[in-house]
Amino acid sequence: MIKKYLILLTVILCASCEQENRQSKNFSSDEMMIRISEIEIEPEYIDEYLSILKEESRTSLELEPGVISIYPLYQKEKPTEIRILEIYADKKAYQAHLETPHFKDYKTTTLKMVKSLKLVDMNAIDSETMPAIFKKIK
Amino acid sequence: MIKKYLILLTVILCASCEQENRQSKNFSSDEMMIRISEIEIEPEYIDEYLSILKEESRTSLELEPGVISIYPLYQKEKPTEIRILEIYADKKAYQAHLETPHFKDYKTTTLKMVKSLKLVDMNAIDSETMPAIFKKIK
Repeated sequence: MIKKYLILLTVILCASCEQENRQSKNFSSDEMMIRISEIEIEPEYIDEYLSILKEESRTSLELEPGVISIYPLYQKEKPTEIRILEIYADKKAYQAHLETPHFKDYKTTTLKMVKSLKLVDMNAIDSETMPAIFKKIK
Repeated sequence: MIKKYLILLTVILCASCEQENRQSKNFSSDEMMIRISEIEIEPEYIDEYLSILKEESRTSLELEPGVISIYPLYQKEKPTEIRILEIYADKKAYQAHLETPHFKDYKTTTLKMVKSLKLVDMNAIDSETMPAIFKKIK
């Protein structure tokens, strides 16, 4: 009985550690690429654009280990103004992202919907605290 | 021997779950307050400002359960242009934040350093995927 419980516990523990390791990596903050993309969308395309962007963000986060964040937002006062917080593990991860089918598909289908696009490269002010951000959400 | 191993495993497992629960909460994304603050700093004060902002962000994240993210960035091309991604659990958490000694102290000491300030309220495009963001970083 005890042996069975012991084996079960070990399996749970290993599975839990395994998942943790799959999700987390020690990325070097020096190499990270951080950006806020400022995108204005033609009003008639906004619903269609949001749906495509949502899909692209999810797929990138899910399939690409080097995509740390693609966090898309829109301004409450002006919903055609999109802001995306993008974080890549390094330049290589970003280049790889540009070559994925889902990014290429997003880029092609939304081309006519984009009124203006500005890619603003950023630096984190406190890279040490970064892992604590968003950790409060389940 | 097996019993000892069993107890040790249980303790490790409980501690691990406990920590997970302390850090994560099921916040409702409908009630969340999301904002990008756009702040321009007078160039002569930039170092001093960054140090004060870093301290304030850390303290808020550490002490206030309702502060989900205070993520401060600056533009690479123009380091006096600050952007802060702020996420609060709800309006109440934001109001409470404004009343904390560390926020009041930040506000008072940096008043003369701020050239312009714009608080832009945002909505998340995909609140379901939010928990996955930043989770890849240890």
